[in-house]
Formats: sequence, structure tokens, C-alpha cells
Amino acid sequence: MKKIITISRQFGSGGRSIAKAVAEKLGYDYYDSELVERVAKETGFSQDYIADAGEYAPGRSILSYALSSGTPHSGATMNATDYLWATQCRIIMEIAEKGNCVIVGRCADYILRNREDCLNVFIYADTAYKAKRIVELYGVTDKSPEKRLADKDGKRRVNYKYFTGREWGVAENYHASLNSGYFGQDNCAEIIAELAKK
Amino acid sequence: MKKIITISRQFGSGGRSIAKAVAEKLGYDYYDSELVERVAKETGFSQDYIADAGEYAPGRSILSYALSSGTPHSGATMNATDYLWATQCRIIMEIAEKGNCVIVGRCADYILRNREDCLNVFIYADTAYKAKRIVELYGVTDKSPEKRLADKDGKRRVNYKYFTGREWGVAENYHASLNSGYFGQDNCAEIIAELAKK
Repeated sequence: MKKIITISRQFGSGGRSIAKAVAEKLGYDYYDSELVERVAKETGFSQDYIADAGEYAPGRSILSYALSSGTPHSGATMNATDYLWATQCRIIMEIAEKGNCVIVGRCADYILRNREDCLNVFIYADTAYKAKRIVELYGVTDKSPEKRLADKDGKRRVNYKYFTGREWGVAENYHASLNSGYFGQDNCAEIIAELAKK
Repeated sequence: MKKIITISRQFGSGGRSIAKAVAEKLGYDYYDSELVERVAKETGFSQDYIADAGEYAPGRSILSYALSSGTPHSGATMNATDYLWATQCRIIMEIAEKGNCVIVGRCADYILRNREDCLNVFIYADTAYKAKRIVELYGVTDKSPEKRLADKDGKRRVNYKYFTGREWGVAENYHASLNSGYFGQDNCAEIIAELAKK
């Protein structure tokens, strides 16, 4: 039985709801905003700042990243982004140490990659499915739903690449990947709970 | 219940054995060398040629592909590669029409992408797992197992990109992806049979 489940997800795919359902099914702790709160408390940054900086694109520009050695900790000094990352890593490792938990996003799949009791899952869906869902959940804005999806996942992609050196959404980064639009959210939660028992 | 299951797989991941086990579990027809035989019979090419040309890199060089319009059928005349592809597409669609089958490789996931009764799965594994497996199955050669893996999957990647315009191994191309080294082959077969019922 796997003690830790990480869920990485495309915006609008319902990965967060699926993660919650998995935690309920297995009686596991669920970490999402809870994690942001803990990082905020320990670093002194606001929760909004962390929700943005920790999950999305890093403070540095892509250009400066390309010109640097490519590792977040290569400089002699630690900037806000690196400090946040270091704290987030430590907190995620502490949470994992306690075990029996589901962690959403925040590169937890990468941070916990050397643990054998960890199941890493990626949730995604077709654009039409995600577009319909975000309009239902968050309403209409000036931007088209397709643009909103592309922007948000684009930021997650840059963030993931910056900290892990990996391409986001490549099957090999995870133990399993599921299309939530195809299987449905309830089925995804059921499948993941089953996978954790294999 | 999904009537058609396509299995795309990395070399050495055991995707073929898993596909066979899924077909047995569900009482479905299994198409692998059977498919090559049919394409050979209809085109007049040898089975060896088809196993290579259909599955691996296309006859044209990457450069000529990059310089062309990017679609296999853009020229006024049809070359051997295109003829083979057209025949393979037709045969795979005929097989799918009959239903209740498992098809291994050959871009079947892409060819059948518009069917709603089709489940597309990608099987992969860590390099160490695949290297150990191919040495056990096919013996030692002059080339290192890692090099053999990279060469074979490199060809599959080029072939897939050439005919489908997609990147091979990206989770979004499939309905589900599973790491066979992590879950084990028996579990993978069991999971896929379950997924087909969702």
C-alpha cells in the first residue's frame, strides 16, 4: 500500500477534486491550501504570494534562467524564489515522513521522487472538457477559456521545468497518467485508490 | 465497455506481454505480428520490411520531412512509405470495425483517435528495468542495453511524429499511461482490463 499520493494536474482537469476524493476514500490527509498556509507561516510571505510563486512561473525571467547555470541554487545568494522553494521542499518532505497523505501540485512528485512508498499521478483532459469546467466553476472573463487554460498551464510548465529540469506532462515523470474527461472524475478517484493498493 | 484497446509501448517495457494478457483476460482478439502479416499480404512487401518500415523511422530523412509540408501525403505521387501507411490505416480501421480487440503499436492510437469505443494506453518503464529485461529476453550484443533502448525508441519517436505530428510519450496522446516497472506487468494487465470497463 502506497502511503503518499501526489497529484499533478492541468488547470480545469478536476485533479484537485479527484485528489480530495482519493484522500476521503483512503482516509488519508489532504494537502493543498493547507500546504500553502504552512509555507506562508514558516516564511512570512503572504498566502497569495506563495500560491502564485510556488505554483506558477518563477520570479526570474526565462532569459535569465537560460543564461544562468540552470539550477535554482547556483547563485551565491538565495533570492525569494529559491528561499520559498527550499522551505516548500522541506515541508513536503516532513509531510511525507508522517505518511498517509495526498498532496496536490507544487512539484511534490519531483521532491519525493526517491521515496518508494510514493505514487505519482498526472491528471489531464481535452481542452473542450476543461474549458467548459472552468467557465462553470469560475465564470466568464474577458479572456477566452482556451486562453486562460493555456496561460495557467504555461506558467505551471515553466515553473516545473525551472525547479525540476523536466518537461511537464511527459508520461515518464509519473507512475500513472489519466484523462479525467475520458474516464470521469469519480472513476479517476476510484482508479487511483486502486493503484495505491497495487 | 471499450471494444478496442490500443497499447503503445517503450521498447523493453513489456507492453507487448501486457497487451497479450489483457486480450486473454477480456477474451479479445490480439493483433501484433498478425497485423504485420496482413499488411504484408495486401501490399506484397515482406514481413521484415513492414515490421521495420511500419514501426520505425520512415524512409525519408528528417531533413526532407522538415523541408516538406509535413504531411505524409503532400506529394503528387505516393512512395513506398506512404503506400504502406495507407494500407496499415485501412487494415487497422477494418479490425477496429469488427471490435473486441487489442492492438499493439503501429500508431493505432492515432489512427483510431475519433472512435469513442477505443481505449488508448501507453506503457513505459525506467531505463534500468527495461535494460535488464531486454538482456534477459534478447541476450547481450555489442551495443550497451541503454544504447539499444535509446536507438529503438528514438526510431519509434520519429515514426510517430512523422505520421501523427505528435510527440511520442506525452501523456495527453493517450487515455492512460502506466509505468510497468513500478506496478509490475500482471498488475498493469489487470488495471487496463479494469479501465476498459469504466
